[in-house]
Amino acid sequence: VSAAPVLTAPVQVRFADLDPLGHVNNVQFLAYMETARVAFIHEHGGTLRRSVLVARAECDYRREISGSTRSVDVTITVESVGRTSFVVRHVISDGGAEAAVGRVVMVAIGDDRRPRPITDEERISLLGSPA
Amino acid sequence: VSAAPVLTAPVQVRFADLDPLGHVNNVQFLAYMETARVAFIHEHGGTLRRSVLVARAECDYRREISGSTRSVDVTITVESVGRTSFVVRHVISDGGAEAAVGRVVMVAIGDDRRPRPITDEERISLLGSPA
Amino acid sequence: VSAAPVLTAPVQVRFADLDPLGHVNNVQFLAYMETARVAFIHEHGGTLRRSVLVARAECDYRREISGSTRSVDVTITVESVGRTSFVVRHVISDGGAEAAVGRVVMVAIGDDRRPRPITDEERISLLGSPA
Amino acid sequence: VSAAPVLTAPVQVRFADLDPLGHVNNVQFLAYMETARVAFIHEHGGTLRRSVLVARAECDYRREISGSTRSVDVTITVESVGRTSFVVRHVISDGGAEAAVGRVVMVAIGDDRRPRPITDEERISLLGSPA
Repeated sequence: VSAAPVLTAPVQVRFADLDPLGHVNNVQFLAYMETARVAFIHEHGGTLRRSVLVARAECDYRREISGSTRSVDVTITVESVGRTSFVVRHVISDGGAEAAVGRVVMVAIGDDRRPRPITDEERISLLGSPA
Repeated sequence: VSAAPVLTAPVQVRFADLDPLGHVNNVQFLAYMETARVAFIHEHGGTLRRSVLVARAECDYRREISGSTRSVDVTITVESVGRTSFVVRHVISDGGAEAAVGRVVMVAIGDDRRPRPITDEERISLLGSPA
Repeated sequence: VSAAPVLTAPVQVRFADLDPLGHVNNVQFLAYMETARVAFIHEHGGTLRRSVLVARAECDYRREISGSTRSVDVTITVESVGRTSFVVRHVISDGGAEAAVGRVVMVAIGDDRRPRPITDEERISLLGSPA
Repeated sequence: VSAAPVLTAPVQVRFADLDPLGHVNNVQFLAYMETARVAFIHEHGGTLRRSVLVARAECDYRREISGSTRSVDVTITVESVGRTSFVVRHVISDGGAEAAVGRVVMVAIGDDRRPRPITDEERISLLGSPA
């Protein structure tokens, strides 16, 4: 049994992400989470890489990310794996402080874009163990 | 007592919203919701217009929005109003079918960007009644 | 000989398009142009619809588009058609005043994504006449 | 006389930047250029930092940036400085190959958002010399 995979990726803040309140627009937080999640799935998702859809997303905004922030860190872990879906946890940190926490439910899909069972290999890959 | 305000706004799909799966990227759903929510708050938010922040967002994705969709309809209602925050419900419809449902918690803020109580007038404006 | 096709499409301004200067970010002007250009090519591009790439874009910014603008109008015409490319002219109007003028060179591509000659039919479709 | 300032900044590619052609959408190239340009002006723009607007942008697209590219490099130099404006050159490199070259004309503005003369200090700061 190996440890559950964790990926922390820096995500760059762009001027175009800022809104008239002078901070990163709430919508962009999801793009930051996606950028790190895609890297995670690329590395730890095995055959899921090209066959997942977002079924649900949630984000708790804890702190504003100001225009002077050049990059944030997004840490990705998989909370749980179900029959056809899995839950990804995202923590966005700005200078060490938690700026947001997000949870996204991803569904495994087949060539017909319908949900399909997650294989044992994929499960182990996401969780680092068969549990 | 008047009816609770409801706003349905068309939101245009842009080519740049689409991703390699040929559908609207999940992140953009939040921009669609925001576009209609801003119009709602402009019309029914009274003095809240310039003094709200997003505290939490959730979105359930029900159907993909394909690249051939030119515009969707977003319907906004206020579910509830608390002491310093209120909950906005968003339904995104694509050709009559529900594509997504989102809930966003908005916090009223003062000039110091700290939460502040929602006034009775603002409450009535959001809900259409003092309840 | 029929008249050269012209398309004027409304393009919606989103809150997320605004930047800390309280106006539409310069990058989004290109998304506005693209939204109308895609509609134009869909209608007047014939078989070019799925086989074009952007080779060059230019935009002259004449006026800021403020956060209170709900939608702009983008007018599309084809300036000229060459052997493998054509030039699209875009005018963005905000309340009747010219906000920007853009020119984009589009290249026709084959299945190999290499430039390929524009057919006579495509030329006539874009220009409304064989000239 | 010191050398003209040059800044090369990595700019991260996000999944949401990709379009149905599986490459970075043409619009996002301008966001990449802006991200590096803002860093350049922050470092070398002196008092121009908070008082510039984009007057014109051009971009020549040389190569597609594919979805497997994680980050590109954007190199910024100032080509020339006029009375109230200056020209910024941007080169976007992807794995050492030139993906795009852009030129943007920036205008110095005063508190009234009207063009104002560029000071000698600003000129020297941008160019590294009074020339």
